Amino acid sequence: MSYNEQYDFYRKAVEETLQTAVPGDVPQPLQDAMRYSLLAGGKRLRPVLLLASYAMLNDDLTDALPFAAALEMVHTYSLIHDDLPAMDNDDLRRGRPTCHKVYGEGMAVLAGDGLLSLAFETMAESRHPKAFEALKELAMRCGTRGMVAGQCKDLQAEETGGDAETLQYIHLHKTADLLTAPVVMGLILAGADENQLAAGREFGKNLGMAFQIIDDILDETSDAKTLGKTVGKDAAENKCTWTRVYGLDKAREDAASYTEKAVNSLEIFGNRENFLKILAQRALVRVQ
Amino acid sequence: MSYNEQYDFYRKAVEETLQTAVPGDVPQPLQDAMRYSLLAGGKRLRPVLLLASYAMLNDDLTDALPFAAALEMVHTYSLIHDDLPAMDNDDLRRGRPTCHKVYGEGMAVLAGDGLLSLAFETMAESRHPKAFEALKELAMRCGTRGMVAGQCKDLQAEETGGDAETLQYIHLHKTADLLTAPVVMGLILAGADENQLAAGREFGKNLGMAFQIIDDILDETSDAKTLGKTVGKDAAENKCTWTRVYGLDKAREDAASYTEKAVNSLEIFGNRENFLKILAQRALVRVQ
Repeated sequence: MSYNEQYDFYRKAVEETLQTAVPGDVPQPLQDAMRYSLLAGGKRLRPVLLLASYAMLNDDLTDALPFAAALEMVHTYSLIHDDLPAMDNDDLRRGRPTCHKVYGEGMAVLAGDGLLSLAFETMAESRHPKAFEALKELAMRCGTRGMVAGQCKDLQAEETGGDAETLQYIHLHKTADLLTAPVVMGLILAGADENQLAAGREFGKNLGMAFQIIDDILDETSDAKTLGKTVGKDAAENKCTWTRVYGLDKAREDAASYTEKAVNSLEIFGNRENFLKILAQRALVRVQ
Repeated sequence: MSYNEQYDFYRKAVEETLQTAVPGDVPQPLQDAMRYSLLAGGKRLRPVLLLASYAMLNDDLTDALPFAAALEMVHTYSLIHDDLPAMDNDDLRRGRPTCHKVYGEGMAVLAGDGLLSLAFETMAESRHPKAFEALKELAMRCGTRGMVAGQCKDLQAEETGGDAETLQYIHLHKTADLLTAPVVMGLILAGADENQLAAGREFGKNLGMAFQIIDDILDETSDAKTLGKTVGKDAAENKCTWTRVYGLDKAREDAASYTEKAVNSLEIFGNRENFLKILAQRALVRVQ
């Protein structure tokens, strides 16, 4: 299979799992609000990362699918809350009106809360022997010393401005933690040893940094139609971004350097790392 | 020990655990916002219920404390989000300004998200052999077919009004589910058998219904100083309450009937159920 075929294979497995992920007995309009945001398409990068990491050690993906779905739920909850008027105040997401624009602010808060809860419920229902360990990894990465910590610093930096240290913290936690989680969770579930887990952490961290820097560059150089979300907002809102602190040239350089580090950390997996390697490199091409 | 001494003993064990529950490396002002709401006092009913249920089968409470703390985190997160302008729009909680009044709406959303994540992180860090099972119970009870489902219906009923069926649904899920969780979790952790778990579920459900009906009555008959929160708001906002649907007399009757059912379901625990029995009866006395 080519890289693109492989990506589509993973993405379709995720989409199929997500179609039935929100239970039918969740009351309305909460059920619709959750589905509206969860099934809005997108690259499904986090669940694909989990499946691809898992596949480096284990071919049968079935047991990993609930965890892939849980990751997309956590990612989607963070987008819904992040888009709220009290946070980033965004009207457009994945080319469609944001959740609170369609269902109202109160229901959007609940849809986010619901997706975060459902992510843990979904993992807790798994009988996989490593389920608890994988759940623990996600709890840590998405929480108050992970993604939520990054969001706190991000929100604050809009008011006070942010220095290089704050910027590093925001990108590491707001973005890289939720790209590291899938890699580590996939490896945990597939039975990785400590060396492989360490390599996965290194890959996730560097890939995450590269991706967020690339995102910062695209927000300055792309248009809404291509990105499917509002662009140029970072600058307008005085967001703490890599391009603002370091400029476009240095941002391109750093994105390349983090990507290289990510790719190198995969060596330990021999010839099964090819997909993740290409995934990292393809993202970089968009800003070169 | 008298009932009051026993309650204080449990409450103090919870307070002590909560003092160090928010890690010191959570960024500011998120750390302060989480602590502000988590350490605002209150009866600590849910964690006390967990410890008392656990104590019916096991005397050493140490292993149950992280789960008691997790419950209070989930309860506190739900209050923070519930108080937001887009939800109940409350300025006063436990006698103090609500979280968003002090830290702003964006930070209050994050403080809630942070506490929910930290609850799961705290449980996932436990090495208790039944940790995963207890976590699963809480995930189910606080999620989209539990507490969040109840909040959805509650929010909706404000606009559309609510009938008896909606009212039952709201009270069962918004309130009773998060009073059933501690009882069942305490029993799970203490090694209860299936019959004891079933009795715990019955107790929690009926206690929860009684408590919410009592709350509805107090909102009509008490004052802000006694309750530590805004009163008379239910009627002002056309909330779906037991008193509005059934009137005060029938509400008192039903509170008594649910309390009796709760107390009776404890029989299976022999003479170790005394504390929970009194706890249920004391609440009822407030509205008689």
